[in-house]
Amino acid sequence: MFFEGAEKRIEMVIDDHGIGFRDRETLFWQTVLAKAGASILSKTTNEYCDAYVLSESSLFVWQDKLILITCGNTCLIESILAIVETIGTTRIKGLCYQRKSELYPHLQQSHFEDDFQRLNAYFEGKAYRLGHLDGHHHYLFTYGSMKHSLQMTPCFTGIQQHHIQGDLAEYLCSEKQDKEHIIQQLGLTQLLPEFQFDDHLFTPYGYSVNAIWQDLYVTVHITPQRSNRYISIETNIPQSELVVNLFHRLFTIFMPQSWDVISFNQELFAKLTDNMPQESQHLSQSTLVLNQQETIFINHYRQLGCEHIPPVELI
Amino acid sequence: MFFEGAEKRIEMVIDDHGIGFRDRETLFWQTVLAKAGASILSKTTNEYCDAYVLSESSLFVWQDKLILITCGNTCLIESILAIVETIGTTRIKGLCYQRKSELYPHLQQSHFEDDFQRLNAYFEGKAYRLGHLDGHHHYLFTYGSMKHSLQMTPCFTGIQQHHIQGDLAEYLCSEKQDKEHIIQQLGLTQLLPEFQFDDHLFTPYGYSVNAIWQDLYVTVHITPQRSNRYISIETNIPQSELVVNLFHRLFTIFMPQSWDVISFNQELFAKLTDNMPQESQHLSQSTLVLNQQETIFINHYRQLGCEHIPPVELI
Repeated sequence: MFFEGAEKRIEMVIDDHGIGFRDRETLFWQTVLAKAGASILSKTTNEYCDAYVLSESSLFVWQDKLILITCGNTCLIESILAIVETIGTTRIKGLCYQRKSELYPHLQQSHFEDDFQRLNAYFEGKAYRLGHLDGHHHYLFTYGSMKHSLQMTPCFTGIQQHHIQGDLAEYLCSEKQDKEHIIQQLGLTQLLPEFQFDDHLFTPYGYSVNAIWQDLYVTVHITPQRSNRYISIETNIPQSELVVNLFHRLFTIFMPQSWDVISFNQELFAKLTDNMPQESQHLSQSTLVLNQQETIFINHYRQLGCEHIPPVELI
Repeated sequence: MFFEGAEKRIEMVIDDHGIGFRDRETLFWQTVLAKAGASILSKTTNEYCDAYVLSESSLFVWQDKLILITCGNTCLIESILAIVETIGTTRIKGLCYQRKSELYPHLQQSHFEDDFQRLNAYFEGKAYRLGHLDGHHHYLFTYGSMKHSLQMTPCFTGIQQHHIQGDLAEYLCSEKQDKEHIIQQLGLTQLLPEFQFDDHLFTPYGYSVNAIWQDLYVTVHITPQRSNRYISIETNIPQSELVVNLFHRLFTIFMPQSWDVISFNQELFAKLTDNMPQESQHLSQSTLVLNQQETIFINHYRQLGCEHIPPVELI
């Protein structure tokens, strides 16, 4: 029952001379997503943004910006190129394509090297690896600037928690599950009372939730399968008490063995670090300056102490 | 200039009713190795053992036992099955097939899951993964017992050092290299004065050395390419002052960022741990009891402190 939780992510910003992303019909997004092997499960919308829960992760659409995140065995590069072909490269002001190192890269349909070559045929961008090949690492292809109409300084913060534990992690692997129970345990609705929520419980396992308010989003994806129980959270809420509380809540519930923190245009908020599990250690950090305004920070942490890992018998 | 340093390894023990491994002609080994995509570069021999330096790692042949180690993009399972087909399963008393997690698994010709299925068609063995999928991990397929005629308690100890540094690591990436200088710097000939040595310097990079004395061997392989500068050492010398000195020497020269210690049938010798780099930490351990006599211990360590990993630009 393996499922690749590691995510691929594209953020794309376009100019305002023509059809905006929100002017596109649902059919457009369905067609684009089908190229990656993903589909739309549900949609929420407000004045600024459309948020879609997908068969594999999430799509957020603003008028001049989109964030599309897919996991599993999806081929996100196909969706990206379909969008690029439709709107044309000249309207694209910036894009940032990220891939997290996978647990089973050989089961993927494409690898970052291939994706990079295909993107490079359209954009004079740059590609990087952040982190060692023999540990958690992230690939990036970036072009232009992520500046868009809504946020003065575009930003996001994401946490990827590996080897999660605890009651909720167990519950998410159980046979009878209830969406209401999960969202209540996650505490998101209490922490984000003004947000609109849209969640989905997958069969047999897995849970996704999108939340939007004005131009802000929060998205959480959980892969509870035992090979590498994994949760990711990402938000464009600027780092603040609220973000600290949100992340702290997930650390408390899931007590991960290790975790990555990715932040775009924000050095790690000290309070965020203070609210990570005690008895943890900072293993590595990578900083990539993209241009005068934009920087990506990736930090990796783990629980202190020697971990006793029992052998896994394969069948 | 990527080279996959991660090794695949087979140890096989046969009964003494028929042709022994050392009775086989060189042509036999050449044919068998060609199946994996490897070839023989040189040979040393003594009363007990033949040792071959290969285009990818090493082969050691005793009358009733062999150890074959290959790295790079070799397909070791093909050699194993060729040997099995030639000598027949009934003569095989035990085998242990190991694969270290690779940096680029998608470039490999086969994956452990495939190899396991093919071995399983011949042997009622068991397969395991030791270590998390998102960190250094080892796959094992084991069948029968490794007991053979020469050692009362069959044993080996191996160290895999990742992200090596220092003058010799730099030298091994330089344009003009000299075998004599390398072996002298490694200090092996001083530490093992009775052993016969056979080494090879690869073009443009890479260094292998085999050493044998009586039924004992030591083998060292170095992949100095910058993507993951890597060295492995393995020996069947029972853990002792000598082994401690040998490993200590390599730690001192190469100052690895992280390392695995694998030991078969020997709990980690305390003096060995004491002689690892100071300021290091024990990250994880896995112990696999194969049968009443045989146990595998795998331990992973790293340097203390937060590592600042600069982004790598891909071209």
